[in-house]
Amino acid sequence: MSKGTVVLAYSGGLDTSCILVWLKEQGYDVIAYLANIGQEEDFEAARLKAEKLGAKKVFIEDLRAEFVEEFIWPSVQANAIYEDRYLLGTSVARPCIARRQVQIAQQEGAQYVSHGATGKGNDQVRFELSCYALFPEVKIISPWRIPEFFNRFRGRKDLMDYAKDHDIPVPVTPKAPWSMDANLMHISFESGILENPKTHAPADLYMMTKDPQASPNIPDVLEIEFLKGVPIKVTNVKEGKSKDTPLEIFCYLNEIGGKHGVGRIDIVENRFIGMKSRGIYETPGGTILYQAHLDIETFTMDKEVRRIKQGLGITFSELLYNGFWYSPECVFVRDCIAKSQESVEGKVQMSVFKGQVYMLGRESPKSLYNEELVSMDVQGDYDPCDASGFIKINAVRSEL
Amino acid sequence: MSKGTVVLAYSGGLDTSCILVWLKEQGYDVIAYLANIGQEEDFEAARLKAEKLGAKKVFIEDLRAEFVEEFIWPSVQANAIYEDRYLLGTSVARPCIARRQVQIAQQEGAQYVSHGATGKGNDQVRFELSCYALFPEVKIISPWRIPEFFNRFRGRKDLMDYAKDHDIPVPVTPKAPWSMDANLMHISFESGILENPKTHAPADLYMMTKDPQASPNIPDVLEIEFLKGVPIKVTNVKEGKSKDTPLEIFCYLNEIGGKHGVGRIDIVENRFIGMKSRGIYETPGGTILYQAHLDIETFTMDKEVRRIKQGLGITFSELLYNGFWYSPECVFVRDCIAKSQESVEGKVQMSVFKGQVYMLGRESPKSLYNEELVSMDVQGDYDPCDASGFIKINAVRSEL
Amino acid sequence: MSKGTVVLAYSGGLDTSCILVWLKEQGYDVIAYLANIGQEEDFEAARLKAEKLGAKKVFIEDLRAEFVEEFIWPSVQANAIYEDRYLLGTSVARPCIARRQVQIAQQEGAQYVSHGATGKGNDQVRFELSCYALFPEVKIISPWRIPEFFNRFRGRKDLMDYAKDHDIPVPVTPKAPWSMDANLMHISFESGILENPKTHAPADLYMMTKDPQASPNIPDVLEIEFLKGVPIKVTNVKEGKSKDTPLEIFCYLNEIGGKHGVGRIDIVENRFIGMKSRGIYETPGGTILYQAHLDIETFTMDKEVRRIKQGLGITFSELLYNGFWYSPECVFVRDCIAKSQESVEGKVQMSVFKGQVYMLGRESPKSLYNEELVSMDVQGDYDPCDASGFIKINAVRSEL
Amino acid sequence: MSKGTVVLAYSGGLDTSCILVWLKEQGYDVIAYLANIGQEEDFEAARLKAEKLGAKKVFIEDLRAEFVEEFIWPSVQANAIYEDRYLLGTSVARPCIARRQVQIAQQEGAQYVSHGATGKGNDQVRFELSCYALFPEVKIISPWRIPEFFNRFRGRKDLMDYAKDHDIPVPVTPKAPWSMDANLMHISFESGILENPKTHAPADLYMMTKDPQASPNIPDVLEIEFLKGVPIKVTNVKEGKSKDTPLEIFCYLNEIGGKHGVGRIDIVENRFIGMKSRGIYETPGGTILYQAHLDIETFTMDKEVRRIKQGLGITFSELLYNGFWYSPECVFVRDCIAKSQESVEGKVQMSVFKGQVYMLGRESPKSLYNEELVSMDVQGDYDPCDASGFIKINAVRSEL
Repeated sequence: MSKGTVVLAYSGGLDTSCILVWLKEQGYDVIAYLANIGQEEDFEAARLKAEKLGAKKVFIEDLRAEFVEEFIWPSVQANAIYEDRYLLGTSVARPCIARRQVQIAQQEGAQYVSHGATGKGNDQVRFELSCYALFPEVKIISPWRIPEFFNRFRGRKDLMDYAKDHDIPVPVTPKAPWSMDANLMHISFESGILENPKTHAPADLYMMTKDPQASPNIPDVLEIEFLKGVPIKVTNVKEGKSKDTPLEIFCYLNEIGGKHGVGRIDIVENRFIGMKSRGIYETPGGTILYQAHLDIETFTMDKEVRRIKQGLGITFSELLYNGFWYSPECVFVRDCIAKSQESVEGKVQMSVFKGQVYMLGRESPKSLYNEELVSMDVQGDYDPCDASGFIKINAVRSEL
Repeated sequence: MSKGTVVLAYSGGLDTSCILVWLKEQGYDVIAYLANIGQEEDFEAARLKAEKLGAKKVFIEDLRAEFVEEFIWPSVQANAIYEDRYLLGTSVARPCIARRQVQIAQQEGAQYVSHGATGKGNDQVRFELSCYALFPEVKIISPWRIPEFFNRFRGRKDLMDYAKDHDIPVPVTPKAPWSMDANLMHISFESGILENPKTHAPADLYMMTKDPQASPNIPDVLEIEFLKGVPIKVTNVKEGKSKDTPLEIFCYLNEIGGKHGVGRIDIVENRFIGMKSRGIYETPGGTILYQAHLDIETFTMDKEVRRIKQGLGITFSELLYNGFWYSPECVFVRDCIAKSQESVEGKVQMSVFKGQVYMLGRESPKSLYNEELVSMDVQGDYDPCDASGFIKINAVRSEL
Repeated sequence: MSKGTVVLAYSGGLDTSCILVWLKEQGYDVIAYLANIGQEEDFEAARLKAEKLGAKKVFIEDLRAEFVEEFIWPSVQANAIYEDRYLLGTSVARPCIARRQVQIAQQEGAQYVSHGATGKGNDQVRFELSCYALFPEVKIISPWRIPEFFNRFRGRKDLMDYAKDHDIPVPVTPKAPWSMDANLMHISFESGILENPKTHAPADLYMMTKDPQASPNIPDVLEIEFLKGVPIKVTNVKEGKSKDTPLEIFCYLNEIGGKHGVGRIDIVENRFIGMKSRGIYETPGGTILYQAHLDIETFTMDKEVRRIKQGLGITFSELLYNGFWYSPECVFVRDCIAKSQESVEGKVQMSVFKGQVYMLGRESPKSLYNEELVSMDVQGDYDPCDASGFIKINAVRSEL
Repeated sequence: MSKGTVVLAYSGGLDTSCILVWLKEQGYDVIAYLANIGQEEDFEAARLKAEKLGAKKVFIEDLRAEFVEEFIWPSVQANAIYEDRYLLGTSVARPCIARRQVQIAQQEGAQYVSHGATGKGNDQVRFELSCYALFPEVKIISPWRIPEFFNRFRGRKDLMDYAKDHDIPVPVTPKAPWSMDANLMHISFESGILENPKTHAPADLYMMTKDPQASPNIPDVLEIEFLKGVPIKVTNVKEGKSKDTPLEIFCYLNEIGGKHGVGRIDIVENRFIGMKSRGIYETPGGTILYQAHLDIETFTMDKEVRRIKQGLGITFSELLYNGFWYSPECVFVRDCIAKSQESVEGKVQMSVFKGQVYMLGRESPKSLYNEELVSMDVQGDYDPCDASGFIKINAVRSEL
């Protein structure tokens, strides 16, 4: 008799294929769930493989549009960045994937969900906090934290052996000496030879972005139009080409950013569970949008609102990194940030070239920039004598 | 009879030359003070000019070393950045210049100081708050906020006419259609044609940095060594060249950054006095250091100390931008930040290329990075089962 | 010919009576405006006096209900408190008074507003920032900052002499040796003998609250019901009496708080303009509400939402104190705080006795308190073993 | 053969007596450790009891002086308060107790420590994070999280039965229907009938403080003198009595506070592990000190330093509550706060009466209060016209 049904977040790779079979061995019925969030993947092959491995059902879900609109866009509004550098491309995908996984579990009457995230990483936290928040009664099977599993599979070789023993097709190309996670927003690289923080990343590691040394010698010039803090249109100024749906906009920014080698970083970051890890990321479109949104936001938002919102954005980034997307505080912070974006609209022009994004200019019907007020050439409605009093009063304390 | 003695922050340019003469006209004795903080200038010519214009004394002070050590270094420790983008190159120079100006005033028995900063900008605030803090009884003459002055000199033409009438040498090269402020850390551009935030900056505006389109096609690779959060050595890895005094280190980073077009930004920012302004900045060495310090800091500082210190760094940046360097709160924040830097030491390697800085690797005797703990290949002193409890407890709230 | 029309915030007292006449002397038409925000005052006598002094029109406006609903209630939601102690009773009245003043100015076609606030205090800032925000073109006449005025009236005696010369009725009761500001929310006392921060306040200074030494020996027990973070009903449990409109609720809390001597504080605070001042405040009803709201909020709001909201509340308090009620950032913060209050509902019971408020119990349909989960006697849906993992993971960093 | 040696935090009560015997049963040698942090206890009787139960050694340590000086004093400097109400009396004792426990373990060569804290509370976290930080290799035995233990002892009756079976003396007085934790700083009450948040606490629950209805009808007047933010002397002004060592000062404040019923609160709070709990606390001396320190701090500390320090104090309070006393971030924050206290010195006078503390006055050689500057009667070195410019500039943004 079955112990129950598990919805497994299945990638088609070696690990989750073994987990699928192992879960069956443990007595569960397994539903394989594979989210398309923009990674390169032969989804139909993955479906066939899962069926072959004994999945009761297979769900392959195209979440790309909702990933952009409901997860990336709020992060853009927040200027989300973790520890001043990381644009959170992995973090933001997890609540999107987990939401659908939980929906499938509820719809299929499964009491269990499972995933292949490791026991040392952030992703386990992000997946599971999302699942618990959306489906509090759910039971989570996390094989990499179950001694029977992790003691049995102590390395890639154990997985390969198990695969061979259980008719699981094994990868024919040799594994890169690092691990990788890809989605529409970014590709991350970690582990393996990258674990030594001093080791330089090999030049052939990158996949979404051209090496800036090999990228075009002529910039592309983009204009991005924002409404309520999210992009509604991108135009390649020279080519006259434009995109205006969220998914197309984001894909196009990835294309242009990737072509010019934009968005590569190599960092050490602090995981939620307390250890430092080294990661390399490519986030081409996200990097362009981060810069563009910063620009239009500062142009249209009151200075002091910006200060407060900057703090909320940092809080949001930490919550997102730590996996709290569906927590009450993250919902609250997103609501506040959305409120702050009501007048963030207008167009920014930028050039994209050799790994860098250069702002060129901006315009907005909601701008708080007052050209006359700030002008050095005209006085405008401003009395310079006021500044004397302003300074004197600000000096009161330091004279005490 | 003299109304008293004024120490004038004198640049050698048209404005402060006119102010020098005008102050004399008003009945003051004028001491001209010109700080060398790394700007391109013929200081001897400026001395002769000031003497010729009737300055009672002329002080030309080389402040470059103290500018780097006492002002730029604390800003590097703070990861100081204003509104997420501006590295504060102008802001950080002001308290350095003002400090010496006040010292001269006190030493020469002058009751007055004066400067040529405009009535709409941040620099008036920065200069004057510094002066009031260090010399509370000082009287400040700020001509661009005195109606008799600013009504008389309504534009450059009025200054030119005055100069001609008073034998003040006038610039022979036509003025650029923007204004500029240069020091060791950066050059800023604003006003004139740049006041329209949509107007793209002309390619020939930049002075410290090469156009990335024309910069070398081969990166330079640098290694910067830090101790207590400040650089103590920079090495050009390929050339084997190195520098190890603060001033030399900073100049060399400017050289390399400038050569590769690093550190150009075009932003709209919020001035302390409430208006938005558009500024273009080149900060080659400062940009490299900002990236390098972020890297070594995250590598060696505890995660939660980093979070708290990040907040203090934002506060410091705002205080610095607003001119409060010598305020009690800025002194306090600098003390706290310095405390946080005690273990920030080690080396970071990076490549500098086409406007961008790429981290390559880092090492430190004080690293909190634990390769075994984080490794995917070995378990280390870590029980993955602990993560289950960690996640469950973190989910308690969202299940309520 | 008239220089124009001024709407003067008129209190009926000596200062603003002299200002009224002085403004007329200067050539203005004066509209006297007296806001009833709950202070003890013979409003009809004030009207007659203003008319007699030559006011072109007199507006006496009962703002009590809107003061409670639109200004005090949002402050209650925010747990507004300045520098950990001051409940902001004066601060919160200013934007209420100024709003109506500006409305009258606009409706009557007056280009000017005027007030009697001093040049060293916070109220001038609060009034004027409110006026500028709501009516940017307004011109403000602030006599205590006009040399012709403040040099002429160097003390109370000068005002008395002027009053006698101009047929202005002078107060018959001798002035207390301090100044006072009263409204529905509080009475503040400062200046005069209170300027020495060591001097103890005389026992007869207080007006809204009984001396706790003379207050009843039996507590009153209140139950306050909240909805969306504001009180909708107060019941005197023993007497069975209840109130359920905002104004009545607040007045009743003042009555009970005052009877028991609740809400007296004697503090030194930091004014916006940088100096420290000593103030004594009585805020009976506000103190009860502050305690009651803290209680119901913590009972019904998620822990982490509360943390973020606590920070917003501190920001709000500073903005309110500094006079920025109508600023973009204060509007934003109020919106965020209001959002946080959606589930803040329920009832709190408390006893009020001898200057103190004691919480007794609380209940709520929206409580996040889970009696089973927290119980020491039943395990509930909680596995204590999870705490082990939680602690171990939290210890990862300190073991590094 | 022994499994090793455990240092057990032993209270002398039923729970830890049973744990002592149970640990022996499990094969451990047990060292009983009882910290005297000011709780009422017959320590010699406890020693005899532990010996009789088979403890290998018994350590009874008087930690009262270090508890005050090294734990309470930094909390006073921080104005430590959790969620705006709780003065952290339990939290602050834990790192003090754990530190000595770990020292004993290290000195006695014990690899284990154990405690009787429950699996749902904060104290387990506080104890264990402290232990792991100070002795990273330590193994912690937490019986209330071990299924064999907690499944065996499902309630008080099971413990009583076990005690009878194992010759453990059982309490003769019936247990109060709540649990209690006492130390020099406070007594806390929770659980049992208090778990219903609506239930009013019975009048006879309180132990450190008189019922304000029965407390003296005449106030005591105290003067507390501070140096570097900590009290160095307390004087009863009427009686002329004074104390000047940390322990005596704190005990005396407890005595006076207790006599007048000061420091009772009844709250719902958010535990670190995410659930809400209801607690009742009496903190007589701590409440007086909190008020007194707030007063002298605001009197002597720059306004903006105070703002920043207020934020650090909130962070410190959360860290303290959550058990992170020995974490890198808490050490950092304490260092910063200590830095802020360098000029916090002077004397505050207050009256203590019927549950309340009333500030009466304050004086300090380091005061930043400038009586002339703030005076309404003299102008001092202040030009009211400066305020006009200050206000106008502050209004720039809201006019945009």
